[in-house]
Amino acid sequence: MKLFDYWRSSASYRVRIALALKEVEVEHIAVNLLKGEHKDSSHISRNPQGFVPVLELSDGTQLTQSMAILDYLDAVYPEPKLLSGEALLDAKIRAAALVIAADIHPLQNPSVFKYVRAEYGGETDEAKMWMQHWITKGFKALEVTAQAYDTEFFMTDTPSLVDICLVPQVYNARRYGVDMTQFPRLKTIDARCKALPVFIAAHPSRQADATV
Amino acid sequence: MKLFDYWRSSASYRVRIALALKEVEVEHIAVNLLKGEHKDSSHISRNPQGFVPVLELSDGTQLTQSMAILDYLDAVYPEPKLLSGEALLDAKIRAAALVIAADIHPLQNPSVFKYVRAEYGGETDEAKMWMQHWITKGFKALEVTAQAYDTEFFMTDTPSLVDICLVPQVYNARRYGVDMTQFPRLKTIDARCKALPVFIAAHPSRQADATV
Repeated sequence: MKLFDYWRSSASYRVRIALALKEVEVEHIAVNLLKGEHKDSSHISRNPQGFVPVLELSDGTQLTQSMAILDYLDAVYPEPKLLSGEALLDAKIRAAALVIAADIHPLQNPSVFKYVRAEYGGETDEAKMWMQHWITKGFKALEVTAQAYDTEFFMTDTPSLVDICLVPQVYNARRYGVDMTQFPRLKTIDARCKALPVFIAAHPSRQADATV
Repeated sequence: MKLFDYWRSSASYRVRIALALKEVEVEHIAVNLLKGEHKDSSHISRNPQGFVPVLELSDGTQLTQSMAILDYLDAVYPEPKLLSGEALLDAKIRAAALVIAADIHPLQNPSVFKYVRAEYGGETDEAKMWMQHWITKGFKALEVTAQAYDTEFFMTDTPSLVDICLVPQVYNARRYGVDMTQFPRLKTIDARCKALPVFIAAHPSRQADATV
């Protein structure tokens, strides 16, 4: 299998964590977003949205959308499980993961702020304010949810789907200067995850295409 | 069960379709977003994000995030299924559904354009341009994906998760004046869905709190 990814992409980082957890080996192929390689016809043929990651299976089938890829990996490589198998807890895990994947993260896609700036005349350094606003808003709600659990990780005692989404989002939060002391439980969960070898291996700075 | 929803909310509309498909009866409780009822402490206690829908189970458990609710309903009320049960096809169905739920729809949350206008000084009627931009961008990619299938609905011969996401998004596209003739396959799938009684029953205009 091949993973077309980019070291700093949150969605790529999620898939790298899941692959590492499940001990699935893939060939990494970097798509350099800064050089616009995601807009090349070769990448558009993999994913008409032009986003990373794309997981290419050994038969050439190409899978897109990180959250769909995580569910696929969980179905095909069941251990360790990313969900609990209990409908109610899974609904809670998925909902918390979606606060990140469907509310916070979409607003951080570079194309969004680029469009805001082009149409409304914001300054480049306002990107930081934009990112902070949406991350803080989402994390405030997520911290309330997280406080209701005293599990080792977000909602379980082994990392689940929501932990896989949280760690890349906290990475981004720090990158844009969000003060994580506002979110003590999220901060603790993030630290516990990041102490695990599989999370370390998936970190952006450990990728071959990383530039910092 | 109770569904806290709003007639025009896409995410609420998705859950209404799934409940109708699965013939699950719920009590509808309208949360009037225009009057700011979603920011009341009573609603924040249901969902710290303040979003609709919230599905309250008979034991009082409250579920949030429409995509997580759809998976929950599919687990607890298995017929008719919203997914195929085949890992690869399900990955494709989920990915297409997420183009809507995690890329197009988050940018249409009224809070996003309201923030853009407050910070960058856009005009009220530019909301239409903003909505059109993101819907058109996402639908272009989705039409490419949809063209690869000749199934009755998006990827299957009975409505799946992606059809449940598509119909509310097309409703929004029309509301903001997006020309749907650019997306012939999406238009056809939408028309087929909307001819079905369950989709008719879930339509915004059929809800008790509808004002048009």
